[in-house]
Amino acid sequence: MRNEVDTFQYIVETNKLLRKGGLLLVSEGEEGKPNAMTIGWGFLGTMWSEPVFIVAVRYSRHTYKLMEESNSFTVCLPSKDMEKALAYCGTKSGRDMDKLKEMGLTTKKGKTVDAPYIKESPVHYECKVVYKDEMEEGRLAEHLQSSMYKTKDWHVLYYGEVTGCYAVEEAEDKLA
Amino acid sequence: MRNEVDTFQYIVETNKLLRKGGLLLVSEGEEGKPNAMTIGWGFLGTMWSEPVFIVAVRYSRHTYKLMEESNSFTVCLPSKDMEKALAYCGTKSGRDMDKLKEMGLTTKKGKTVDAPYIKESPVHYECKVVYKDEMEEGRLAEHLQSSMYKTKDWHVLYYGEVTGCYAVEEAEDKLA
Repeated sequence: MRNEVDTFQYIVETNKLLRKGGLLLVSEGEEGKPNAMTIGWGFLGTMWSEPVFIVAVRYSRHTYKLMEESNSFTVCLPSKDMEKALAYCGTKSGRDMDKLKEMGLTTKKGKTVDAPYIKESPVHYECKVVYKDEMEEGRLAEHLQSSMYKTKDWHVLYYGEVTGCYAVEEAEDKLA
Repeated sequence: MRNEVDTFQYIVETNKLLRKGGLLLVSEGEEGKPNAMTIGWGFLGTMWSEPVFIVAVRYSRHTYKLMEESNSFTVCLPSKDMEKALAYCGTKSGRDMDKLKEMGLTTKKGKTVDAPYIKESPVHYECKVVYKDEMEEGRLAEHLQSSMYKTKDWHVLYYGEVTGCYAVEEAEDKLA
């Protein structure tokens, strides 16, 4: 059982987990196979008078293809026992395997978007892509460009309008 | 007296104020005249392994010129008695007047950046621009493009690496 909650109710936990351990970015392309990628970078804020979650995906990632195909995603906060899944989804590619299944995680279609969420995640955001920034040479400070993009594998920044934030009962106690 | 605090300590207040009343974006160009603009849109999060504050400034704004000249800015959280200043700095242009002086507010050069902060603000972030996204036709969802950019006065999204967050004693009680 999961209920809709205020979009900013878990902003502290969201930012804490982003900076330590990571969150799971979940998407699903035309093939209908859900995939999760661990993210440590992102923003929850307000733009165009709407709550917006920004996530960054490199062109080389399997998730990039899925994001382009579906234009929606969910961000799932991990529970205490998802440490292994976070490590796994941060190193393996969904091109080669079903990472979620391997980790014993199950998904369900979003309540407001096509992208699925992880049922075992205590809190998740549902997001519809409304804006996209394809990073390219020359717009980023030199020291970051040379350390983060040596191979020119840029990020695409997806701005997702948050169409809903959902939490299970006593989510605070279950979050990692 | 203001002390450096954890960058994410005031994330709840920052987002609450963004969505209700606004924050003050302060910048100073080559002329050396500090200027404040009220903002209701923005993001505090993590990117390139650093804390980053994203602010949006339209090309038509006086602040745009100042941001381009200095490449740094501060975001200042209002105190309880700054309601009038927020309304004022959200409607008047710094081209025509010294808004801060008119509102009886004083500034001081940032501790880590050239941009000044408002001394009467209980909490402020200092930011160095590391990335810039100049919005343009065709990248934003149609319904937002037609409602927000009728005159094609696009926003520039400035990603500011947060080089410090500072708070006065008992800031919680002083914030709007």
